[in-house]
Amino acid sequence: MPPALNRRLVLAQRPASTPGPEHFRRDDQPIPEPGEGQFLVRNEWLSIDPAQRGWLNAGGYAEPVAVGAVMRSLAVGVVTASRDPQHAPGERLYGWFGWQDYCVADDAALLARVDPANGPASSALGIFGIPGLTAYLALQDIGRPQPGETVLVSTAAGAVGSLAGQLARRAGCHVVGLAGSDEKVAQCLADFGYHAALNYRAGLDAPRLRALCPRGVDVFFDNTSGEIADAVWPLLNVRGRIVQCGTAAVAAWEPPPLAPRRERLVLARRLRHAGFLVFDHRAHFAAAIAQLGAWTRQGELRHREDIEPGLERAPAALAALLRGENRGKKLVRLVDGERVL
Amino acid sequence: MPPALNRRLVLAQRPASTPGPEHFRRDDQPIPEPGEGQFLVRNEWLSIDPAQRGWLNAGGYAEPVAVGAVMRSLAVGVVTASRDPQHAPGERLYGWFGWQDYCVADDAALLARVDPANGPASSALGIFGIPGLTAYLALQDIGRPQPGETVLVSTAAGAVGSLAGQLARRAGCHVVGLAGSDEKVAQCLADFGYHAALNYRAGLDAPRLRALCPRGVDVFFDNTSGEIADAVWPLLNVRGRIVQCGTAAVAAWEPPPLAPRRERLVLARRLRHAGFLVFDHRAHFAAAIAQLGAWTRQGELRHREDIEPGLERAPAALAALLRGENRGKKLVRLVDGERVL
Repeated sequence: MPPALNRRLVLAQRPASTPGPEHFRRDDQPIPEPGEGQFLVRNEWLSIDPAQRGWLNAGGYAEPVAVGAVMRSLAVGVVTASRDPQHAPGERLYGWFGWQDYCVADDAALLARVDPANGPASSALGIFGIPGLTAYLALQDIGRPQPGETVLVSTAAGAVGSLAGQLARRAGCHVVGLAGSDEKVAQCLADFGYHAALNYRAGLDAPRLRALCPRGVDVFFDNTSGEIADAVWPLLNVRGRIVQCGTAAVAAWEPPPLAPRRERLVLARRLRHAGFLVFDHRAHFAAAIAQLGAWTRQGELRHREDIEPGLERAPAALAALLRGENRGKKLVRLVDGERVL
Repeated sequence: MPPALNRRLVLAQRPASTPGPEHFRRDDQPIPEPGEGQFLVRNEWLSIDPAQRGWLNAGGYAEPVAVGAVMRSLAVGVVTASRDPQHAPGERLYGWFGWQDYCVADDAALLARVDPANGPASSALGIFGIPGLTAYLALQDIGRPQPGETVLVSTAAGAVGSLAGQLARRAGCHVVGLAGSDEKVAQCLADFGYHAALNYRAGLDAPRLRALCPRGVDVFFDNTSGEIADAVWPLLNVRGRIVQCGTAAVAAWEPPPLAPRRERLVLARRLRHAGFLVFDHRAHFAAAIAQLGAWTRQGELRHREDIEPGLERAPAALAALLRGENRGKKLVRLVDGERVL
């Protein structure tokens, strides 16, 4: 039986830095009904993403979630009622449906229809969702890896990083990963095709890093910023590219923390440092999903999921992700067959 | 009468940070003779450039000048003897001829023949030389100013900056300059077409800077790094470009000084920060000089020179330039008609 009420997790108070369960509360409400041009989605999977930290504070690329509002989240769900002729009940969609069971939405909230040919619905949130699109399009737009170059990926076993590493390997590069545990390092080597990987928590001294990158670094795919970035930048080669896809290692930016000044490196080595936000590249989503789907069906790309059961686990899942404790794409599952989780 | 000896200024000791006269000494030697495929140039003008500080230390883009070697410098001189059929006596050349009266060189040391149609020979070192080429090609390659955008230039009255400002104005931009004195600010407004300019030594507080850039900054043409850059970066708009052409405000980079960490700005605003070194773009020099020459003859581009007489003044001229005391392209004149300076 579906729940009589719509379970919702709303922002209770704005976190000063890293969000945790204490910043959210349940606020159940009647299941809403779609108006003209709208449809009702029942969420099946919630996406837990590092970017969600940024959506809780001012100064990012997106308007912050309001206190009292449902936590912003990507999700996959199925249409259960519709007053939009383009979306019939039973259709599965990927979009901005929030930390809740039910969402009334319109086309503006959609990122994609879920293509059943691409495998389980949850993959629409990972390899065929924002993480996969980020890895693919950021490498295409900024990284531009060339055969024989060295590509270094931070959060190498994560949802974005694990794809970036595999795509760089496909491009003929020497691929080096930095990850936060020995287990993730093993996963990088066994599953994600890295030539070398290092547990940065065991020490990031320059000689160790240099030994993994004997020809320097041509593309730094950076999801972390912080001390990891500070260790990598001096290894960058002339005409190196730094893809800034995330800043997971830095919890607070007001005031900005200090870092070694980089203008001299940028100038002397003619580096190109660029920020990448996948939502700027919607026009390329369909082609990218098609390409990632083809490679996946050919067995050339692997991805892993790390699934938490139940809506109530979402805040703790986000906190764990931000501590680097995930093993693959972090998801919250809301239904298991007919059972509500 | 030409000197019987070749006056030379050699590096006496490597400076820890900013070079001054104490780091150089005279070491006169017999005038050399060209070998097969070489020619002898008599220098007329020496170029004094901010980049010369970088050539004295390790870690830059160029091999450091050796202690005891002639100081590396661009110059304009006339061929007085030649064993290279491509260069006849009387021809005027622009190249790497060093802080000395005479230089034996071959084609590898040349940047360009001096085109008499472009005006006085000294202009080959300024608007038609590395400064002009840097301003033109860096804007073309990285800055890409679009009509209606705001372009902010540091060292706005300098040899590179004054051209960058004029070229941005030609491109239809709102152009704002930062310069190091009230006199330079006046020059920016009167001579170089800036819409607004600010003496950064009188205070670089955010509200003053913001008032000059009411629509933010789309292109930051940065020749300084340091506190000036730290004040400008927060004003950058989404998809802003930072052209790193110099780092004149920072005297020492070992160890790197600290700065506000920028990854979050780069990511959230999708900035593109790139280093520009004009010597990577030799293939475009001839076309750029032709274009700059055409605009100059049409009266659309102005440049100023700041001339010191006499070889011995070169070290002090460099130190003054690095203190920001120049008024236009800094040059040392070595001959005045028949008179040696």
